[in-house]
Amino acid sequence: MHPNMICEELHSALRTIAAKYAQDQICVVMDEEVAGKGKSIVESRWNVLCMPVSEEDKSLETVQRIWDFLFAHGITRRGLLICIGGGVLTDIGGFAAATYKRGVDYLNVPTTLLAMIDASSGGKTGINYGGLKNSIGCFDPPVETLICPDWLKSLPANQWLSGFGEMLKTGLVSESALWYQLLQYDLEKMDSEALKPLIAQCVAAKKRIVEADPKEEGLRKVLNFGHTFGHALEEISIQKSDVSSPPLLHGYAVVYGMIAELYLSVVKLRCPKEPLQQLTQVMLHYYGKPQCKCSDREALVALMQQDKKNERTAQINCTLIQDIGLPLINQVITPEEAHEALEYLFSL
Amino acid sequence: MHPNMICEELHSALRTIAAKYAQDQICVVMDEEVAGKGKSIVESRWNVLCMPVSEEDKSLETVQRIWDFLFAHGITRRGLLICIGGGVLTDIGGFAAATYKRGVDYLNVPTTLLAMIDASSGGKTGINYGGLKNSIGCFDPPVETLICPDWLKSLPANQWLSGFGEMLKTGLVSESALWYQLLQYDLEKMDSEALKPLIAQCVAAKKRIVEADPKEEGLRKVLNFGHTFGHALEEISIQKSDVSSPPLLHGYAVVYGMIAELYLSVVKLRCPKEPLQQLTQVMLHYYGKPQCKCSDREALVALMQQDKKNERTAQINCTLIQDIGLPLINQVITPEEAHEALEYLFSL
Repeated sequence: MHPNMICEELHSALRTIAAKYAQDQICVVMDEEVAGKGKSIVESRWNVLCMPVSEEDKSLETVQRIWDFLFAHGITRRGLLICIGGGVLTDIGGFAAATYKRGVDYLNVPTTLLAMIDASSGGKTGINYGGLKNSIGCFDPPVETLICPDWLKSLPANQWLSGFGEMLKTGLVSESALWYQLLQYDLEKMDSEALKPLIAQCVAAKKRIVEADPKEEGLRKVLNFGHTFGHALEEISIQKSDVSSPPLLHGYAVVYGMIAELYLSVVKLRCPKEPLQQLTQVMLHYYGKPQCKCSDREALVALMQQDKKNERTAQINCTLIQDIGLPLINQVITPEEAHEALEYLFSL
Repeated sequence: MHPNMICEELHSALRTIAAKYAQDQICVVMDEEVAGKGKSIVESRWNVLCMPVSEEDKSLETVQRIWDFLFAHGITRRGLLICIGGGVLTDIGGFAAATYKRGVDYLNVPTTLLAMIDASSGGKTGINYGGLKNSIGCFDPPVETLICPDWLKSLPANQWLSGFGEMLKTGLVSESALWYQLLQYDLEKMDSEALKPLIAQCVAAKKRIVEADPKEEGLRKVLNFGHTFGHALEEISIQKSDVSSPPLLHGYAVVYGMIAELYLSVVKLRCPKEPLQQLTQVMLHYYGKPQCKCSDREALVALMQQDKKNERTAQINCTLIQDIGLPLINQVITPEEAHEALEYLFSL
């Protein structure tokens, strides 16, 4: 399994790894929004492609653009693709690398909290297809993920909150000590120094899980907590988004999804009510209520029935928790239960 | 590593494996040319997609068609895709399965000699992209490959010869006993019963090599013998093909490629001349001379410089042999040497 390196000196860490490759065989794809700092850490000899990276760009067309870029620079199987950006970029870049000439090495430099905690490690790559999130992709780990919390200093508040949502999930499925530390972290201040030890704990917790089950055959599904409802909420919001109302950020969707799934954990597994109450407090204080109409509920349930995490068609599959740090995978939810959980979520 | 089963009773072998999956989670993609026999071996409950499958169909669009088919039938990660057809179909089907929801199981039923010997086992999946053969894809082995030589009874002569080309290659890179048995096989008769033990030997030889090096990091490159020149010849012929002149079949291209690479093996590695003379005899008797003009040579060399087997840009990388059964990988060929080998090939 690949390492996740938390590093202070990104430029030198990057150069050390890149030294293992022929320098004309190194390509970089970069979110154009981080191009300023991004360009300062790459060598001038490397080929760079700056791209716009929104959820709508997470498409086969963007993958083709990266393939074309690699072909244009004559990258061989011994090449390296460096992906600098958020989770959307590292997911797409990883998929392009995994399928270019049957696989070239790639390295992730996550620039958002969400990507540091979640997307940039663990080897899940992919794109959205047929209206479904991450429905095409493969498992292929990066050779390295270089996590540098310095990027967070210029990160907008909503992106902080999005990443923090995945941190909260990691706490809930792994250990109560981490959960309570996260609840004590002062989100108002958004202090990246104070967050570092928590990032390190979340990354280590994820790493333990992914190493034990890289292809999500069992254990790894604990990381899907909050994601059955979360993905459906996210997809609906993408379908309905326009210039004036941007789609829901992933971590927000996961927080809302966790509320629904904690509710079901309480109802179905007698999970204590404290984590649901605590997360509800955090949600109301920082994230705000989810913006979904009652009329969306049918569509949400239908989307959940198509989720790729399901083992059988039209059956909704969830990870729930019995208590903090005690997740239970493969819990089947009826459409009625899904409606009840959505009712609860939208009533808050 | 997955098994390769040589079976007489295809229908029952298929049913036994399929019994491990929910029956509504089984999909079949089938070359429309084998639909008659193909449909007789699949269960009526399975979802079937019949498609035209030529080299030009080995495209991203065809992969999308298979993804859409799998989505339309609500196939989950626990599903199974059965691929019934030649190498083009099993390559595309395998790639679609490897990337659908980050990977579903797939099973190959090769219907051509070429697919039995080569494409349908070993886990190389892919499509043509950007004018380059198999330039996008990944390594993902099928859960099983069911080889039934009965299909060969209705196979056209040129398809027999194409598959036999890969058998000849297997002989040259693995052992002289197999090579001499292949030379003794009476190709005029095209007797599938007599070919069975030779198919079994070729499949076993490939299996040993692929198991030792599934991702082609070293040893597996011996199987690329004849393919550096072969792929270039094949690509040129695809570019120039039209209704009246179909493109070169893969195994023909490999035979021509082996002539060029045997020539270089003699010149550069002092390989004995016998295999070159023997293969030239077989070529002239059965395959005919390659149809390429002198003016194509520059384009052929340029294509070889872009081959995905190369470790560095613009460097031509070949597998050569020191003698029958003694291959040498990663041999660098200069453009001048490539021209010389083409000159020899086209002078025959």
